[in-house]
This record gives sequence, structure tokens and C-alpha cells, in this order.
Amino acid sequence: MMNSSDSARVYARENAERFQNELFEMLRIPSLSGDPAHKGDIKRMAEWLETHLRALELQNVQIMPTAGHPVVYGEWLGAGADKPTVLVYGHYDVVPALLEDGWHTDPFEPTVQDGKVYARGATDDKGQLFIHVKALEAYLKTNGAAPVNVKIFLEGEEEISSPNLVPFIKEHLDLLKADVCVISDTSMRSIDEPAILHSLRGMTYAEIEVEGPKEDLHSGLWGGAVHNPALALVEILGKLYNADNTIAVPGFYDDVVPLTEQERAMIAKTDLTAEQFKQSTGVPEIWGWDTEYSIRESIAARPTLDINGMWSGWSGPGPKTIIPQKAGAKISSRLVGDQDPNDIFDKLKKYIESITPPTVKVKVSLLTTGKPALFPINIPEMQAAAHAYEKGWGATPVFTRGGGSIPVVAEIADMMKIPVVMMGYGLDDDGLHSPNEKYSLEMFQRGIETAIVYLEELANM
Amino acid sequence: MMNSSDSARVYARENAERFQNELFEMLRIPSLSGDPAHKGDIKRMAEWLETHLRALELQNVQIMPTAGHPVVYGEWLGAGADKPTVLVYGHYDVVPALLEDGWHTDPFEPTVQDGKVYARGATDDKGQLFIHVKALEAYLKTNGAAPVNVKIFLEGEEEISSPNLVPFIKEHLDLLKADVCVISDTSMRSIDEPAILHSLRGMTYAEIEVEGPKEDLHSGLWGGAVHNPALALVEILGKLYNADNTIAVPGFYDDVVPLTEQERAMIAKTDLTAEQFKQSTGVPEIWGWDTEYSIRESIAARPTLDINGMWSGWSGPGPKTIIPQKAGAKISSRLVGDQDPNDIFDKLKKYIESITPPTVKVKVSLLTTGKPALFPINIPEMQAAAHAYEKGWGATPVFTRGGGSIPVVAEIADMMKIPVVMMGYGLDDDGLHSPNEKYSLEMFQRGIETAIVYLEELANM
Repeated sequence: MMNSSDSARVYARENAERFQNELFEMLRIPSLSGDPAHKGDIKRMAEWLETHLRALELQNVQIMPTAGHPVVYGEWLGAGADKPTVLVYGHYDVVPALLEDGWHTDPFEPTVQDGKVYARGATDDKGQLFIHVKALEAYLKTNGAAPVNVKIFLEGEEEISSPNLVPFIKEHLDLLKADVCVISDTSMRSIDEPAILHSLRGMTYAEIEVEGPKEDLHSGLWGGAVHNPALALVEILGKLYNADNTIAVPGFYDDVVPLTEQERAMIAKTDLTAEQFKQSTGVPEIWGWDTEYSIRESIAARPTLDINGMWSGWSGPGPKTIIPQKAGAKISSRLVGDQDPNDIFDKLKKYIESITPPTVKVKVSLLTTGKPALFPINIPEMQAAAHAYEKGWGATPVFTRGGGSIPVVAEIADMMKIPVVMMGYGLDDDGLHSPNEKYSLEMFQRGIETAIVYLEELANM
Repeated sequence: MMNSSDSARVYARENAERFQNELFEMLRIPSLSGDPAHKGDIKRMAEWLETHLRALELQNVQIMPTAGHPVVYGEWLGAGADKPTVLVYGHYDVVPALLEDGWHTDPFEPTVQDGKVYARGATDDKGQLFIHVKALEAYLKTNGAAPVNVKIFLEGEEEISSPNLVPFIKEHLDLLKADVCVISDTSMRSIDEPAILHSLRGMTYAEIEVEGPKEDLHSGLWGGAVHNPALALVEILGKLYNADNTIAVPGFYDDVVPLTEQERAMIAKTDLTAEQFKQSTGVPEIWGWDTEYSIRESIAARPTLDINGMWSGWSGPGPKTIIPQKAGAKISSRLVGDQDPNDIFDKLKKYIESITPPTVKVKVSLLTTGKPALFPINIPEMQAAAHAYEKGWGATPVFTRGGGSIPVVAEIADMMKIPVVMMGYGLDDDGLHSPNEKYSLEMFQRGIETAIVYLEELANM
């Protein structure tokens, strides 16, 4: 006799093509959360998911409003009170994508090449969240039941750092109540080395605007006695870093908890060689290579400060001889250990204001924050995930730290007092947030089978 | 009996409203020379001028092709070989203007408020070039003749630094042959203090592009070991300046000819107070105020290096957590004395390449150049201009140095061996190259009358 997970896996294989086509429908909806012009697409995406969850005969399916974009919720609680409940979190929103950014195909028309689907959101996070929906469907359609209770919880503001998620969770603690939360929104180094993330960096994201003259000035008539706002911004941004590439904001490193020897040994297992790093990123040389930290430590366990965007004056074709009226930049820090995102913003703002000369005006605004997160790896929920990869994916996973920030992870752990297991089904080079984001259809399939096994493993904890 | 200039001035007053309406027709044509999308508008503008010059019954009227935008030419040689010939140079192209840059009205729909017309090109240079056309018309319609021979020479590439003008002049030296060139494309401090420019700064305009990874990267997955191209650009741009705001490019000041005491005394006559400077520009404080040069010296007789534009990564609404693939900037130097624009570009490029770290790639391209120019003030052509302002404008002019660059000035002087007299009919705060560029209709009228008198003064030299 077959295990219930076996028949569910057979079903998933037999329905693979339909599952892919359903995913492609999702990928065609440009559900950009950061751009007000796409509010209607966000709504369409939420309605598509609601309709889909209803069709699977989940219970309590609803689009739930927040102060921003809505949450889509649905549950199957048929396993009963003596079985664990797993909360599946995913996000249906995506970051912007324009053909002229370097996409080879329309970012919102999924295109399959060499077994990979190219589209914005393919791996982040539509492809990955859908894995759990399809795993649940496979149980319900074959066994009429799943091994554990499942709550599907999909938000539409992850890419703008989930500004309304904390109040939402607070308000709906009973509805969301669960024993473990699983999130698939991360990646592995290669298909044969799945990774379970047990740590994430936090984030402080800010915007700086420098203003000089009252309007763009003719650089010939006025150049020589006006502090060019673009130059003033350059000077300010330059002073955020020390000569050794560390961050110069006073107190920035105060709450970074030093890595232990044990932690460094585990991180070393997934370290990258310089060649691998250059291959994946395309950079000519590694930056900060002479520091005391390894590459993996630098990108996953150490704090950063990056310029995400910068603008001033004329960037169109041909010359334009102006002194720009203003200049701006978006900057963000990835945070680790006990660094508090609001405290880091305060330090950043204070420092920038202190180094801004009287020849220009500066404004520093906070855009979003996210707390760092860290979970132990020896708890049953983590070990069940490891077994699921072994049986469902066909490879032993490594436990790793992620350099990215999924704000909800620390918040769920804080508010719901449950562990969050990050079972990533993407590849490091899937190009999330980049042009030509892709997702392997083989990984989509193996992900569904792993998610099927995970529910069974959770039932047997 | 009236002087011929008196009847021409009466005619100009009687036809003032029609002259203004004709100017407004020109201002409605968005003849942007730097943007290929506006090539058709450039053509329309050239055709409008050709039609207009033909209607005035000038001779030899033609649109003359160049490798870029065409020249419009027309002449009246009825004064005969014993009278001087004046070459009037102007440009019919304009710099870009977008409503969202801060214009209060459509930049290509001239709007009159408080006696000023607001439109891109109102002062730079459509309003000013048209003064000479109308002065000639006034003579021809009242006297059937002008006091001197006049050649009208209008180009369409001044705002992109006239890349095709030198070959054009070389090829048409006979056609353009004249005794003096007059250009109205500059301004005065106040309506009661007209200014004749006898010096201009030159220009080297370059673009820098820094490239890092092969595409935009997720800042969480890769941040910490990638040299952010925006930061690399910031570092490069920061190193172009010394701590005292002087320019750090080796050899940059080598060919700057020191100002004599006599020159400094003349420049001091048109110096600005800190209050006037802050009022005109809107800056909170003057930059480089503690240097050894006065404000007027800094903006008109000293070289500069300005950032005209800068771009990288995400500048749209909301956060986007990327490490940008590249970053770029447009920078330009205003040059004085014996500084050679190509030599300055070579020094700049070499220096930038030398300070670029191996973690990124850099490309430095030359966009345009213009040589500096300086003429003596005691020659008859300059003195005739001074008399013309006294009689036609009603105020004694000052001789000043201009901080801007009109590439053709140095080229005409070099190739045609004639003086160039820059009789500006604009105001310093007309906002050329800025939003809400304007031109006073009173100055338009007084300009036409001054131009009428100037032709008579030239005849009497």
C-alpha cells in the first residue's frame, strides 16, 4: 500500500503541465507593490489566488484588507486538533521589471527556455509560494485529506518591506495560530545542494535628498560658486564608508554579535570560491577581499550598506550644461545580530546631518525596516525539513544563513512564538530582482514533492 | 529730417505686437537639438526661419545641410562694398524642457505674465536672435536699405556644442566673409546696466560610466562583497576635487593664465554681493567663499568642474533592494585662459582611469568641447556697440567676462580673423537652461532698437 504522500506525489507528476500553466497565469499579472500605478494588478492577483484557493475547496478563503495591499487567506483544518498546524507564508507581489532594463523577453509574459520559465516573480515568490498550494491540492485530490492542518497566508507587500503586516498579524493571532511557519522564498547554491535557512539579515532602507539652488542653473553662468548638489551628495555618500570599506556611521557595528568559531565553521561549509562568486555576479574582482571575513560571511552574516539608486540632473541623451537643483539616493543596510533597524536609521540620519555642509540642505527619510532573525537548527521542525529534502528532493540539505531580509520572519517568530523554517526552492542565480528572473521547472516539480513529504514529516514529529 | 535709424525705430515700435507674435510662433516649436526624437521639430524650425527670411526679401536665403542639424542663411548686401559687413550669428535650437522639471506653464506654449514671455528658448536664443532679424526688417521696410551689409547665420546645434560648425565655416568662408560678427546670446545683471561680453569660458563635457556586476543584483543575496557601482562612481567623483574645493585632476590648472590686477579691477565693477548671489540662485550659502577669488571671478574667469547629471539603479517610487549593474555621470569643465579642451579631457580621462579600482570597469567619453575666447575692448567694433547701447537702450554698458561657453565665438575669431561682439539682450536671472525660462518683452523691444542703432554705428566707424 502506498503512503498518502506517495499517491500525492504521483498526482503532482501527472498534473505537472497544468500546474505550470496555472503558475504562468500568475506570472502574467504585473503585481508590483511599490508602484501605485499597479494597484489594480495587485487586486487582480489577490482575486486570482482567492478564486484558486476556493476551487481547491479550502475553508475560510478570503481577501483580507490591510492599510495597504490585502492578504489572501485560506485554510484546511481537517487533520484535527491532535495534529500540528503549519502556517504557509508567501507573497504575491513583485519588484519592478522593464524590458529596457535588459530583459530578453517580456517580463510579464512567461517564456520557457531550456526547462526554465523566465518572468518577474518566477522564483520570487510566485513559483515558490505555489509549491505549497499544489502540495496541499495533491493530498486533497488523492486522499481527501492532508497529514497536518494547513493555513495559507499570502501577502502583497513583501517587496516594499511589509509595512502593514505586523498590525495584521497582531489583529489575527487566533486565525493564524500554528505550530510552525514555513516559508519558501529563498534559494540554494546548486540543485543538488538544497538549503534550509535558519537566519536572515534585517534591513534599514532610507532615502537621501540634497537640495542646492532654487532651480537647475546654467553651469556657465553660475558654476564656480554654487555647491553642486550632485557633488554634495557624492561627498556625503563617500563619507559613509571608511577607507577599508567598513561603514563609517558612528555606532553602526555596536550591536553586531560576533560570530562564534562554531558558527563560522558551519558557514564555511557553504562558502563560495572567488571564481564562483565572480561567475555568479559577473564582477571583475571581489570587493573587501582583504578583510577578515570570508565571502559567505560577508554576504550572509555581516552588515552592509549599499546604494540602491542615485539620481540628479540630466541623464538623457546629449549634454545639458546645468547645475542640478537637487540630487538623491536610496541607500539600505542589511543588519545582523542585535542591530535594531530604527536605531540604525537614527544613527545614519544623525551622521548624515552632521556631515552636510551649510551650502546645501539635506533630507533623510526612512522608507522601510526589517529585523534580523536567527533560529536553532536542532529543533524537530527544522529536522523534519531536512528529512523532507532527503526523501522528496533527493539530496541532503545544508543549514545556511541568508543575506536577504524577509521582514515577516522575525515578526512571526516574535509575535507567534513559533519557529520559521525557510525551505528555499530557488537557485542562487535565479536573478530575483534582476532582469531575466527565471525559475527551473524541474525545481518547481521537486519542490512540490518535497513540500508534500514535509507535511507528512511534520505529522510524524 | 529723421535719421534712417529713427524711422526704423518708429517702425519697430509700431509693429511691436506683430514682432512678439512672430517670436511666439518660434517658441512653440520644440527644437531640441540633443534629442533625436525632435529632429522633425528642428527641421520645422529651420523651415520657419527660411520662410521668414524670404518674406523679408533677403537674398540667397537657404537651408544649408551639415553632418548634423542644418544652418539657415540669408543676406542683404545692398549697402555696397565700401560699407562694412556684419555677420549676425544666432542659434535656433534649445535645451530640453519638461513640465515635470518644475515649469509653471507648458514650456512650448509661450505665456505672457507681467510683461515677460515664459517659454523654452525665450531668451536662449530665439528671442535674442530675432532682435537682429527685426532690426534689419525695420530698415528695409522704412528706408529700403540698411546702413551696412548684413549676413544672417543661424545654427541648430549650439546647445550640443556645435559639433559641425567648424567644418561648415571652413567650407563657407567666402559666403560668411564679414568685418565683424555680432552675437546676442548673453545677459546683463539688470535692465539698466547692459553688458558687452569680451570673454567667454570654454568647455570640456564628458560622460563617465562605471560597470560592476553583469546585471542588477539582489542586495541581500550579494551585498557585502560586491563593489557597488554607484559607490565606485561616488568615490571616483569625490576624488576629482581637493578638500578646498579646487579640482584634483593633475595638470588641470597648468594653462590657466593668471588674472592681472587691471583685469581684476574691471571684473570687480560687475561683482555680485553674497546677498545678490544667494537671491539669484537660491543657494543657502556660497560655495568656496573662503577662496582667494571674488564671486564674479569664480563664475566668469576661473575654471570649474560640475556634475551635470548622475544616475544609477532605482529612482522610482518605493524601495528596490538592488546593487545596480552600473552608474553614470555627466561632468563638464568651464575653461579659461590657455586651457585646451581636448588636453583637459585627456588629463581627466587618464586621472579617472588611474583612480578606478579593479573591482569595477570604467569608461570615460568626450561629449563636446569649446575653446575659451578673449577680445580687446578698445577696438572700434566694441566701442560702436557701447554707443549703440547708450543711444538705443538708454544706458551705458559695462564690458564683462562671461562664464558660459558659446563654442562658435572662439572658432569664428580663429578662422575668420574678425572680432566677435557679444551684445547680450537678456537678464542674468532669465532662467536659461532652467524651468520657467523667460524673456522681458521690454528688453526685446529695447534690443531691437539697440540693434538698429548698432548697424548705423558700424557704418560710421
